[in-house]
Amino acid sequence: MRLYTYFHSSAAYRVRIALNLKGLRYSAVPVHLLRDGGEHLSVEFARLNPARLVPVLEDGGATLTQSIAIIEYLEETHPQPPLLPACAAARARVRSLALDVACDIHPLNNLRVRRYLSSALGLGDAQREEWIRHWIAVGFEAIERSLAADVQTGSFCHGESPTLADCCLVPQIANAQRAKLPLDPYPTLRRINENCQRLRAFTDAAPAAQPDAE
Amino acid sequence: MRLYTYFHSSAAYRVRIALNLKGLRYSAVPVHLLRDGGEHLSVEFARLNPARLVPVLEDGGATLTQSIAIIEYLEETHPQPPLLPACAAARARVRSLALDVACDIHPLNNLRVRRYLSSALGLGDAQREEWIRHWIAVGFEAIERSLAADVQTGSFCHGESPTLADCCLVPQIANAQRAKLPLDPYPTLRRINENCQRLRAFTDAAPAAQPDAE
Repeated sequence: MRLYTYFHSSAAYRVRIALNLKGLRYSAVPVHLLRDGGEHLSVEFARLNPARLVPVLEDGGATLTQSIAIIEYLEETHPQPPLLPACAAARARVRSLALDVACDIHPLNNLRVRRYLSSALGLGDAQREEWIRHWIAVGFEAIERSLAADVQTGSFCHGESPTLADCCLVPQIANAQRAKLPLDPYPTLRRINENCQRLRAFTDAAPAAQPDAE
Repeated sequence: MRLYTYFHSSAAYRVRIALNLKGLRYSAVPVHLLRDGGEHLSVEFARLNPARLVPVLEDGGATLTQSIAIIEYLEETHPQPPLLPACAAARARVRSLALDVACDIHPLNNLRVRRYLSSALGLGDAQREEWIRHWIAVGFEAIERSLAADVQTGSFCHGESPTLADCCLVPQIANAQRAKLPLDPYPTLRRINENCQRLRAFTDAAPAAQPDAE
């Protein structure tokens, strides 16, 4: 398997965690989002992924895009260890927590949106940073309340082993820390993040541990 | 089953299509996003969904949130007719197309973001409408190129029957039409939308066909 990745991309980070949790070896192809005006914006990369976003996973003849679709694919092709629980309602809970990050937080703060805020709307650094913190805070507040209120929450987002939800949460917490968002209001998120950080699958997937890290 | 819905919510519209495609009866509980400062922002609704977003589906004892997680749940609990193909790579393709809409277009344009653009950033109507059209155009351009280049595209996004991808695409096209985005650059999207609009499952789910439509 070959993963097109960028060390700081939190969507690529999710897939790196999932690959590690499943014990799957892959070769990393770094795509630098800032160098040369963005390698992901090249004609070659657009041929691989018309959406011009990382990650992309190549597996045999298949070219897969969108981090959550990739992790669902890994779950179906390599079921052990499972990243989704067995029962349908619990699977929906885990997917919903993952989408709380992947739909409602991350897309508002990714590189192209930050660029549009600066270039098209003329926002200064302070307003742009406030935008970033605002959407993480709105999302984390909802996730914190969901997790804290539910007995299905364990050492991880769902029970006692990591799931798709943890694959999405941990990279978003890293982004929050980069954005200097205080995490005190989210004790459950912090606790789960600390538990994940005890596992090699998570620490090996972290931005600083990547070959393309700067 | 009970669906908390708002006629104009495109995330609720996705779930309405999926319920109809599977022939599942449900009772609709309208949640008005504009009346009384937003019924979804009430204490009662936050207890149901801490993220304060529609849709929410109640099924037996389960309370389900996030439209794609809900549709995956329906797929697992009511497999016929399938909204995902059988093979893992094809399932990943359909999920990726759905997430191209659900992650990379819709979250940038939903009500709370439009409100932030006006209130916190002081954008006028013209700049806000330009923002909306910009992100739909960026996303549609990528989806058009993905669909047009792939022999797996048929009368629908994937083959000859509707999938999760069509459940997401059609509501986003409705949003694009409301935003007055010209659709000429996206002939494949338009063709698929027209094919979907021939099916009762789609037309019965449309905003104008809802009991709470205005």
